[in-house]
Amino acid sequence: FKSKLPRVEQSIFSVMSSMANKHGAVNLSQGFPNFPVDKQLISLVSNAMKQGNNQYAPMAGDARLREVISHKIEKLYSRKFNPESEITITAGATQAIFTAISAVIREGDEVILFTPAYDCYEPAVQLMGGVAKKIQLKAPEYKPNWDEVKATITSKTKMTIINTPHNPSGVIFSESDMLQLQTIAEDYNLIVLSDEVYEHIIFDDLKHQSAARFSLLSQRTFITASFGKTFHTTGWKMGYCVAPEKLMKEFQKVHQYNVFCVNHPFQKALAIYLENENNYLRLPSFYQNKRDFFLKKIEGSKFKVIPSQGTYFQLLDFSEISKESDIQFAERLTKENKIATIPTSVFNKNKEDFKQIRVCFAKTEETLLKATAILNSI
Amino acid sequence: FKSKLPRVEQSIFSVMSSMANKHGAVNLSQGFPNFPVDKQLISLVSNAMKQGNNQYAPMAGDARLREVISHKIEKLYSRKFNPESEITITAGATQAIFTAISAVIREGDEVILFTPAYDCYEPAVQLMGGVAKKIQLKAPEYKPNWDEVKATITSKTKMTIINTPHNPSGVIFSESDMLQLQTIAEDYNLIVLSDEVYEHIIFDDLKHQSAARFSLLSQRTFITASFGKTFHTTGWKMGYCVAPEKLMKEFQKVHQYNVFCVNHPFQKALAIYLENENNYLRLPSFYQNKRDFFLKKIEGSKFKVIPSQGTYFQLLDFSEISKESDIQFAERLTKENKIATIPTSVFNKNKEDFKQIRVCFAKTEETLLKATAILNSI
Ligand SMILES: CSCCC(=O)C(=O)O
Ligand SMILES: CSCCC(=O)C(=O)O
Repeated sequence: FKSKLPRVEQSIFSVMSSMANKHGAVNLSQGFPNFPVDKQLISLVSNAMKQGNNQYAPMAGDARLREVISHKIEKLYSRKFNPESEITITAGATQAIFTAISAVIREGDEVILFTPAYDCYEPAVQLMGGVAKKIQLKAPEYKPNWDEVKATITSKTKMTIINTPHNPSGVIFSESDMLQLQTIAEDYNLIVLSDEVYEHIIFDDLKHQSAARFSLLSQRTFITASFGKTFHTTGWKMGYCVAPEKLMKEFQKVHQYNVFCVNHPFQKALAIYLENENNYLRLPSFYQNKRDFFLKKIEGSKFKVIPSQGTYFQLLDFSEISKESDIQFAERLTKENKIATIPTSVFNKNKEDFKQIRVCFAKTEETLLKATAILNSI
Repeated sequence: FKSKLPRVEQSIFSVMSSMANKHGAVNLSQGFPNFPVDKQLISLVSNAMKQGNNQYAPMAGDARLREVISHKIEKLYSRKFNPESEITITAGATQAIFTAISAVIREGDEVILFTPAYDCYEPAVQLMGGVAKKIQLKAPEYKPNWDEVKATITSKTKMTIINTPHNPSGVIFSESDMLQLQTIAEDYNLIVLSDEVYEHIIFDDLKHQSAARFSLLSQRTFITASFGKTFHTTGWKMGYCVAPEKLMKEFQKVHQYNVFCVNHPFQKALAIYLENENNYLRLPSFYQNKRDFFLKKIEGSKFKVIPSQGTYFQLLDFSEISKESDIQFAERLTKENKIATIPTSVFNKNKEDFKQIRVCFAKTEETLLKATAILNSI
């Protein structure tokens, strides 16, 4: 049998989490929090089940949840999306990303990606017969060069995928980046997929430049978002997609036959929980404390560090510690030092090795203390 | 923008459920139970959340849940699937079906479908550039003619999709059907997708002919199954796919980037609940009581009926009541008589109208009494 995706293997996240478990290592690899979920949110789910919300939700999602999302986006980014026709609740942001790509990419279409890139974009493009055109961002700034983007566009270019705050670098797009993207998307009639799963995890009073803030851009963009990243519930697999009606119509054609709809009791619970804006407005300072705590504790280490601007990831430059490849280094750290991280070369265009590993600091103080003690000893 | 799925519209299930809500009709259209979920199962989910199972599950699913599924299949169908490499937990059977088709169907591949067919198969085939070759089953027997199947096969035929117990007809495949399918699949090297979501809802001591019972067939088949249909939790969107390792490997390549993994607390709960085999062994008699109750109550009606053999659906032949199309008839019943059903022509190859509507009898006695009183008055 000839594989449709011959190069796809087990994701680096599964690989490193398994390796962490096997070696009893502190797991800062796969991006998930290890502190408890708000008890109130858990109660809301339990109540939703007890109240009988256990059968199919509407295909696009619970009406109230879509309303609340619409209000949130309007309040934060001054853009009104119609909850009836421009918002769909998904089984995590991953399903939103896969569905958006599936809905519009055809055989031969080109999709511009910035690498290092999260690993789910390219396989979806390939599965639809599209071709990923990668633009490599350079460590340590990871800043896009928009002239290079223009030079990469051909008559076949259909979509550009962006991700801000950016995983794994923790860099965010500036307003100027977004304006340049908007101009290019307009000039070349591109669809944009804006992966904004870390929208609420941003530091130092920086501002998340959601595609929703830019009027013309938002008329040609799928924005994907994650309740898992926002409410410490990556295992609930809840997210959503927002797009102008003409794109959302195509999205829903695929969504309807990919999953039909999404877990109903969780939607009911999230609708109530999301109404209290403090539940997400508190995140920047909550996570900034985590980042700052982590950075303070590794001040004496041999890793070189530029503080993350957003996401719950921090890159660590190990070039003064070892000449190994980042994969070898990360493996050795897991096995010998009992700390699991993510080597970042796997996300790069030609597996460029900038000697950087990624750690997830969405962890309890106890875990961070343990982890930083190990990192300081390396 | 040119749609990739120009003919896809809102599914008949959403259309009829909305119409039912709008007109305050008893809703026997979309297939979902309206009685409560077992309290024990709800507690198991609540406990799983409280115990902290709120982050990513393993990509293929919770290990214990896959073990229990493997035991269940071995016990019921005498086929051992390896839980490590041949079972994946999915966001409902719909995601399993979409993912299986996506994993193996390429541009130009032909897929044989029996119509009337559940509505999610064809769009998935089309999205992958495949072509659905439909074989129309004739009312009221809805029995496949295997010579017709052979005559439909070309060098491009890659897959056959079957569904037993069959939605909407309630007919089941016999052992002889499965043996003939097996021979054809072997002779022409076809992959089979066997949609068995109603495996536990089967009546009159008939036997579910799972593809897992047939050794050669099971080596080339994706079997898809549903916890929603089995445990009255269609809104939890939990299901699974079973397939031999070589197919499952391809399935997981897509699954990993479609959803990555599935709701973790629900998996933990289902693993425990599924261990008590009575939780599914009781279903045939539970649903047979519902079917029999429904049939008894409409004995005096003008509908002609052949009892359903499986699923929680019953077809009603209205040819002695009206000359309207089944769509007109179903619409009128919803608006005027306040009972919503599903017209079946929408599932047929050329929208053949056999003057049959489908009702879902997975309802409380109260609802069934109300519904049958209306049906008797028509
Ligand atoms: C789906 S597992 C990966 C989680 C994640 O977002 C990351 O670690 O980058
Ligand atoms: C996904 S909504 C349709 C539910 C169902 O299986 C049916 O009504 O046939």
